[in-house]
Amino acid sequence: MARSSSLHGPSELEPRGARRKRETRSKLLAAALRLMAEKGLDAVAINEITEAADVGFGSFYNHFESKEAIYQAVVDSVFEEFADWLDGLLADVHDPAEVISASVRHTVARAQNEPLWGQFLIREGLPMRVVNRGLGRRVLRDVQKGIDVGRFLNGDAFMSFVAVSGTVLASIAVALTDLDRFSTEHLPERCAAVVLQTLGLDQQAANEIARRPLVS
Amino acid sequence: MARSSSLHGPSELEPRGARRKRETRSKLLAAALRLMAEKGLDAVAINEITEAADVGFGSFYNHFESKEAIYQAVVDSVFEEFADWLDGLLADVHDPAEVISASVRHTVARAQNEPLWGQFLIREGLPMRVVNRGLGRRVLRDVQKGIDVGRFLNGDAFMSFVAVSGTVLASIAVALTDLDRFSTEHLPERCAAVVLQTLGLDQQAANEIARRPLVS
Repeated sequence: MARSSSLHGPSELEPRGARRKRETRSKLLAAALRLMAEKGLDAVAINEITEAADVGFGSFYNHFESKEAIYQAVVDSVFEEFADWLDGLLADVHDPAEVISASVRHTVARAQNEPLWGQFLIREGLPMRVVNRGLGRRVLRDVQKGIDVGRFLNGDAFMSFVAVSGTVLASIAVALTDLDRFSTEHLPERCAAVVLQTLGLDQQAANEIARRPLVS
Repeated sequence: MARSSSLHGPSELEPRGARRKRETRSKLLAAALRLMAEKGLDAVAINEITEAADVGFGSFYNHFESKEAIYQAVVDSVFEEFADWLDGLLADVHDPAEVISASVRHTVARAQNEPLWGQFLIREGLPMRVVNRGLGRRVLRDVQKGIDVGRFLNGDAFMSFVAVSGTVLASIAVALTDLDRFSTEHLPERCAAVVLQTLGLDQQAANEIARRPLVS
């Protein structure tokens, strides 16, 4: 028994070590997401991340070269993974209006359910550099598709992208703020409706599409 | 001569003292605006403000009770004064679409010309609490006016406010960011056009109104 265990030791240890490494990486990413969403990239020190993740300071560098590297990994996890998930979910939806509507609703709803995720999206998304990657590039692509097939009646694809992104981010901000005298009921659907109108659909069509049952 | 000077001393000194006090207050406000736009309220210490303003630490309290007090004064100067200026400028314009269009164009253009002002507007405006005051309350009022007279075809006044604000703030973010492959030419007019379409005007009408000569 002891001998067998010893013989198999290295191969048993290896996966355990790999698993532990993955877990440490996940802890570091989760802590970095939380701290950076709260304070912004510049205000977060590496030792704060390792302390919040409850791992040794030195082990940070087994996983990431620098603060910028973990930041980029966090950004990727926020934008790329979510965008990929939406792409998979909506692969069979062919109306660009419905694709945009569902994307907007899922995005606002996730921010309502996970406020930290929402805060991070606002902080990272507002500088609009996201137009070149992940979720932002995807919004621009979907807007352009709708313009190309004549579904969206706004020829200025870039400004449409800016308006859609700005409206979604502002809606997320509303979800994260207590604005006593304004109701945020059905916020995801109302956001989708105003976005579709921005893209040139009339009010009735926009409201109808924004309230369709949601694939999830 | 010496006697006369001495006699008039106090009354000469008084205005000079008052002027100096006003000047110190202005310096403190300008420094606070700059620092808070760069770093956010929480990250700015009072001694940073007094150092940047080149005034003694103690004199801060001759003008403001606390950091929150100078912050509120800065916010007021950013939002209320600009909103008042727009109100005066557009007092004789009766078409709500033209009022919104001109307001949007002036706001985006000012942010282009004064990037710090733009940064501050983004930072303060995005949490959407501004719906209750200054520039934000004014946007909601103008949107509601347009809906009431049937000029804007979107019954959801609050979401229209959110979309207009989000689109303007995102456009300002675009103006402050270098997005090499996207042109920001005519950004104020393009922003106004997409905002008018959001409010229910058709593309042609929105483009025409957004490109009218601007009162200034």
